[in-house]
Amino acid sequence: MDRTIGLLGGGQLGRMLVREADQFGIRVVILDAENSPAKQISGTLEPKHINGSFTDPKKIRELARQVDVLTVEIEHVDTEVLEEISERGVEVTGNDGKKSMKRVEVQPSWKTIRIIQDKFLQKGHLEKNGVPTAVSESLESTEEALSIFGEKYGFPYMLKARKDAYDGRGNYPVRSASDIPEALNTLQSRALYAEKWATFKKELAVMVVKTSDSPGVDATTAYPTVETIHEDSICKLVYAPARGTSTRLQKQAQDIARKAVGSLWGKGVFGVELFLMDDDSLVVNEIAPRPHNSGHYTIEACAGISQYRAQLLSILGIMPSFPSHTISADFPATIMLNILGGATKPAHNELLRQTIATPKASLHLYGKESKPARKIGHITIKASSMREAENIIAPLIKTVDGIRAERTDSSPVNSPISSPQKLVLVTMGSDSDLPVLAPGLALLKELNIPYQETITSAHRTPKRMIEYAENAASNGFKVIIAAAGGAAHLPGMIASSTTLPVIGVPVKASTLDGVDSLYSIVQMPRGVPVAAVAINNSINAALLAARILATSDPVLFERLEKYAQDMEDGVIVKAERLEEIGFEAYGKK
Amino acid sequence: MDRTIGLLGGGQLGRMLVREADQFGIRVVILDAENSPAKQISGTLEPKHINGSFTDPKKIRELARQVDVLTVEIEHVDTEVLEEISERGVEVTGNDGKKSMKRVEVQPSWKTIRIIQDKFLQKGHLEKNGVPTAVSESLESTEEALSIFGEKYGFPYMLKARKDAYDGRGNYPVRSASDIPEALNTLQSRALYAEKWATFKKELAVMVVKTSDSPGVDATTAYPTVETIHEDSICKLVYAPARGTSTRLQKQAQDIARKAVGSLWGKGVFGVELFLMDDDSLVVNEIAPRPHNSGHYTIEACAGISQYRAQLLSILGIMPSFPSHTISADFPATIMLNILGGATKPAHNELLRQTIATPKASLHLYGKESKPARKIGHITIKASSMREAENIIAPLIKTVDGIRAERTDSSPVNSPISSPQKLVLVTMGSDSDLPVLAPGLALLKELNIPYQETITSAHRTPKRMIEYAENAASNGFKVIIAAAGGAAHLPGMIASSTTLPVIGVPVKASTLDGVDSLYSIVQMPRGVPVAAVAINNSINAALLAARILATSDPVLFERLEKYAQDMEDGVIVKAERLEEIGFEAYGKK
Repeated sequence: MDRTIGLLGGGQLGRMLVREADQFGIRVVILDAENSPAKQISGTLEPKHINGSFTDPKKIRELARQVDVLTVEIEHVDTEVLEEISERGVEVTGNDGKKSMKRVEVQPSWKTIRIIQDKFLQKGHLEKNGVPTAVSESLESTEEALSIFGEKYGFPYMLKARKDAYDGRGNYPVRSASDIPEALNTLQSRALYAEKWATFKKELAVMVVKTSDSPGVDATTAYPTVETIHEDSICKLVYAPARGTSTRLQKQAQDIARKAVGSLWGKGVFGVELFLMDDDSLVVNEIAPRPHNSGHYTIEACAGISQYRAQLLSILGIMPSFPSHTISADFPATIMLNILGGATKPAHNELLRQTIATPKASLHLYGKESKPARKIGHITIKASSMREAENIIAPLIKTVDGIRAERTDSSPVNSPISSPQKLVLVTMGSDSDLPVLAPGLALLKELNIPYQETITSAHRTPKRMIEYAENAASNGFKVIIAAAGGAAHLPGMIASSTTLPVIGVPVKASTLDGVDSLYSIVQMPRGVPVAAVAINNSINAALLAARILATSDPVLFERLEKYAQDMEDGVIVKAERLEEIGFEAYGKK
Repeated sequence: MDRTIGLLGGGQLGRMLVREADQFGIRVVILDAENSPAKQISGTLEPKHINGSFTDPKKIRELARQVDVLTVEIEHVDTEVLEEISERGVEVTGNDGKKSMKRVEVQPSWKTIRIIQDKFLQKGHLEKNGVPTAVSESLESTEEALSIFGEKYGFPYMLKARKDAYDGRGNYPVRSASDIPEALNTLQSRALYAEKWATFKKELAVMVVKTSDSPGVDATTAYPTVETIHEDSICKLVYAPARGTSTRLQKQAQDIARKAVGSLWGKGVFGVELFLMDDDSLVVNEIAPRPHNSGHYTIEACAGISQYRAQLLSILGIMPSFPSHTISADFPATIMLNILGGATKPAHNELLRQTIATPKASLHLYGKESKPARKIGHITIKASSMREAENIIAPLIKTVDGIRAERTDSSPVNSPISSPQKLVLVTMGSDSDLPVLAPGLALLKELNIPYQETITSAHRTPKRMIEYAENAASNGFKVIIAAAGGAAHLPGMIASSTTLPVIGVPVKASTLDGVDSLYSIVQMPRGVPVAAVAINNSINAALLAARILATSDPVLFERLEKYAQDMEDGVIVKAERLEEIGFEAYGKK
């Protein structure tokens, strides 16, 4: 708490870090140009910020003299001087005029920054540590070398500068041999490597906190797995958690990200970008040794412990530990949208107006001058479901797409909205039960509750039934409706393989008038409850599912109150008509 | 967005306002001493802050020249100069050297600030506008006048300074006639009034946003009703929403607060303090024309629209509108705890350490030097239930109590923890059903689910039954369990009067083996679902309620998974024993 942090770089990441540090009374001294975004919001206390370049060794040493720990908001720094400061120290003059060397911690370690800033070294390091990455090779900057790589791994492939590459700059997709001269020309005089083309389904990312100086996966804690959407090679959207990704895959991504970060030296937060490949395998794309765009959502979604709080506490050695080495989100769904500068300075004003008019939107402007395609801020939406978040953000994305269209002189694209999270799993023992379930399914639709319908027979597909039941919760379902007739085992067996509430609909079969089905469903042994509704009454099953969902969804609760009111009104209309015209006329109507 | 705000005062309220303004790119220029809390986090941009006193008319005019709107973080300001600036303007010199008058908006209106800063004027204004307040009278500063008031309204009563009173300073409780000389001595030379002693159950508060210059309740929007706990006349804790307060009362408090603020002029946020009297009536205690300690919780709990965002947007005229004129919280429960300076400067260090180690705690330090009993920061906890929030904050309150004990040289008090919100209403048609329900109730207890048990007979207490059902949701219940036997109408009738999920337990009566009860419960008409469980099986009713609650409570979900696992393990142990020793020996065991 009383240790001072020195920060190389005062851009938006530094700004958000400083914002968090102020809350904790932690002093952060910044080395960057005057009035840089982070300095704007932290000016008047001692020790004063330093004006200058965060790549200037003299200035870095000046900063080191005043602080206890050095950290970075960008990995493109001079690791030689960081090594010197960390290992040998920086010369300071005491009050007595005597000179001595002061060692200053560098977090994360200069070793880690050095490996990460050379993307090819980074890949090699990860491979050596058993972390899956895309196939890549370092290359001479010659046409011959580029041809050979293409023949070996096929076209297209990605040619990359080993250093100083970000937001797509420094990457060149080599689509065929004829692209080679232009590729070399674009990336000229830089050390290069090439990567086999990765055909991935989706880009994921995981923020990881590391809390010890030496490597070790036990010293790492992972934030949720998020989905990132890039446009023009710049991050556009982050969905937390990743949409349509099973909890098993999300956990795998967290494990790989922890393993990757666990192989590195020093403390701090790290952004790990991954690809989810076509075959559902995961590979690490790259790591950032600092807070990351894909972790901005944590400010609102994990407000107790945002990535910036985690950076502060981890480098100061006071990070609390978390069960299972994971930090969870406070909200079921969060979406982050970057604001990039448009064709003109006021191009994004309409977006700001819209955002301000959207109560669930948190706006973060970075105090940066607007330039075309420059990241000048971001917007975060949090909601009780991904569907709600997507609906809230849709008009903002539309405006962003319009700004981009104007800037790039292209026509606006339509960002797709994912299908909503399905909340009710409706299953039946046989398709012959469908006519009984149809009115209930229609009602779920009317109430705007997303559901999944399927057939799982207890006696003909027992394994399938259990698999469905076991995975229902992790697939995001909240309630299960199961219909069956006769020796109706389906609802009870489903209830035995899940902790979700299960509603049983007894279907009237050819004998016993449905009493067999009812008894089979309702008379469950102690320990495994089924909520039975009336025989053939799928409407009540749907309504019961809705009432259950409404216990945590106030909007749906209001919709159900209205449904009950409409029902009451309907009966009253009939009553009034009967009172008015009497039973003979009423019967004829 | 491009209008500049001038702020009189740069304390913690200003600091939190500036923090929010930065996110929106809104410039706030502060008049206060150098390095005041708000200035510390906003230093380097033009126009520069002004060093000086926010009560100095010359400095206020200097500020007004540079901004478009003036607002306050404290009501103890010079309203004469605000009136002058707002009505006649402030002299400015143009680029051509010509002088002209520039009118600057003052928000909220100087009229409002003038009324509010004199507490007796404030009371009169509220009474005139039909807002309930405590009985009070203005008084001469003489022993005679004080005696007469005491004889008229009884002792004790509260003697108050009309102006410049806050955090208990300026109040003197007159317990008997013999207190009068000391009371006059303490409050000497101030204009006084006296208030009839208010015996209240609870202090409540509501933040209200006003969005028009003229009075009008339609231009107001209320935040949730919160409960405030004061200690040594200083706000200590804020519980949002107010604990153990019905939604009807919470709504009433919001309505009264909106009416009070709606009677005033100008835009901005207002803190309204209320007393919940012994007879459940509500009276307004006082209003603050600015963000308020009781609204700090909105930073985390209503993060889309904190009181600071609301202040900015309302005074700039760009506040979005909210359905039903209310802003709701993102979290079921939030608690705010103030950090006051202790006996020594480092007295609160342990509290900070504890807070940092508590991931769900958000810490806000104000950058103020620690002095005994000075507000130097606050902590906010948000959780999925008030019980959870109370459990998280309990150790922090304990530390705070220890700091106070050291500072006041008294022994620590024990802050009571409220009883948890009851989630399940368990009702039965007759006390003869109790033996059937007992195992289910025991299980709810074991699962740590707070419940309320009662008796409501459909046929003997029909009105009581409907009243319970109708109020269950607004009383915070999430699920109802109803048990009945024979012509078991209770579960269905309850389900007809609520939108909560209702679980029916058929009780086996003296004839028909419980089939009568089962049919009465399960065979509900379309539109009104009851979840029937097996005859006499209250265990399954409890488990079903737990599964329903677990759809929005991950901690409970895990507990249920463990319950299922234990049950499975239990059977496996028996199976192994049976396999080992055979049925003859097993039967004897």
